[in-house]
Amino acid sequence: MTTSTANTQALTLRYGQQSVPAAGPWSSTIEGLLAHRSVRKYKPTPLESGTLETLIAAAQSASTSSNLQCWSVVNVTDPAIRSELAKIASGQKHIEQCPLFLVWLCDLSRNRRLGEAHDIELTSLELTESFLVGVVDAALAAQNAVVAAESLGLSTVYIGALRNDAERVAQLLKLPQGAFAVFGLCIGYADTETEVKPRLPQPAVLFENHYSTPNEHVLRNGYDETLGEFSRRHEMAHDTWSARVIDRTQKKAAVGGRAQLKSILERLGFPLR
Amino acid sequence: MTTSTANTQALTLRYGQQSVPAAGPWSSTIEGLLAHRSVRKYKPTPLESGTLETLIAAAQSASTSSNLQCWSVVNVTDPAIRSELAKIASGQKHIEQCPLFLVWLCDLSRNRRLGEAHDIELTSLELTESFLVGVVDAALAAQNAVVAAESLGLSTVYIGALRNDAERVAQLLKLPQGAFAVFGLCIGYADTETEVKPRLPQPAVLFENHYSTPNEHVLRNGYDETLGEFSRRHEMAHDTWSARVIDRTQKKAAVGGRAQLKSILERLGFPLR
Repeated sequence: MTTSTANTQALTLRYGQQSVPAAGPWSSTIEGLLAHRSVRKYKPTPLESGTLETLIAAAQSASTSSNLQCWSVVNVTDPAIRSELAKIASGQKHIEQCPLFLVWLCDLSRNRRLGEAHDIELTSLELTESFLVGVVDAALAAQNAVVAAESLGLSTVYIGALRNDAERVAQLLKLPQGAFAVFGLCIGYADTETEVKPRLPQPAVLFENHYSTPNEHVLRNGYDETLGEFSRRHEMAHDTWSARVIDRTQKKAAVGGRAQLKSILERLGFPLR
Repeated sequence: MTTSTANTQALTLRYGQQSVPAAGPWSSTIEGLLAHRSVRKYKPTPLESGTLETLIAAAQSASTSSNLQCWSVVNVTDPAIRSELAKIASGQKHIEQCPLFLVWLCDLSRNRRLGEAHDIELTSLELTESFLVGVVDAALAAQNAVVAAESLGLSTVYIGALRNDAERVAQLLKLPQGAFAVFGLCIGYADTETEVKPRLPQPAVLFENHYSTPNEHVLRNGYDETLGEFSRRHEMAHDTWSARVIDRTQKKAAVGGRAQLKSILERLGFPLR
């Protein structure tokens, strides 16, 4: 298969026949990125020794704002804690089944302790900006771990549903004030075949100089069709993307305990000033 | 060079001689992740045709919470806008010099418009949770673009300093309510040699089951030494990491306009309820 054929095939799976972008240069790493699928069923096969350390080295190699390194990660090996976390995440069984489950933290507490060691109060840590820095740091690090894992033939899925009860997660993992579990991540060998999920066409998310949406409804309708085919093949609850977005975001109740995130964050040491 | 030699060399650059983790499996993609350096000086060489589309395809292949795709990206080609953005970012010249400059948005506005098209108000969009989802979505997407770019021999640097005045950025890029520029990203061919920057040793950021920091001060002192050598070689302002963290986070004034992020976000359509 030529590079250009592989490239077209990967782009067609990601965007559907109608919306293949005019992509250019290609690499085996990019091939891997394009092939990403979230996997929710894992074999019990344990990971090769040293895999965790490799993934964390990849994670720490990501950019971090001003090298402040405002993130940490908890490797949850205790089945009792896994079981509690799965309950918080509406019973997602793969949290208990996967060989490696990592919880990624926005962590301002390490730098607060550093200040305390020098008898200095780091007042900027209470700002919304500092919270944002920690969340972005954690996300960049985690994504590098995902890319590294997939390059080793492993599969992954992010678990945002830990935020259904971020306070209980903090208790279970004994997090100090100023640390917050942004999401979990399951890692292991896939025990299921999954298809690449199509995304919105590029013109719906990419703008030049100014944000502008003259054809948005046309792009959306096309995407509803593309994702509709995908959803019907997988017997998913919602035919179209539009229906799913509306269902997920119409009522605050649909996001469950996550609607309380603001007050929970305050209790966890993030006043978001 | 055997895999294991390449692996040890990359890990030594990332952690210093004293803190090389016992990493295991390896891949060329991981090799690329470990070699990441932020680059702040670019050649004028234009990018190969189709590079932007390749990078966005990589970005859209990242996970996105519930497939809501709450992010967008603006490709800034107008030199006048680039110049204004550089001013906001304390005069970072590479924003004007790099061949590709992307601004990554936490974007709830697309889904709000989708709701409006169905005459439905998506009330959860005002939640802190929804803001968090958009920020994480944008960060995961951007990091995939970074990994893709570096796999093509390109270099990058994130520009968090756009948040010095997130409101002015929104005006310049004509962002609708509910879209917020999380950070910029310079992409191009490096016009400078840079070294891999060492990070904290793994035991300082990785925990098992419970957060616990018995040896944190020892790890910190070791890292201060490792980064001290790096900083002296590069004539950086702060010898140690500790000094840098304290300087950067002691006073709210040190983060400049970012101290106002909370009220700016409110005006941009993120009440963070």
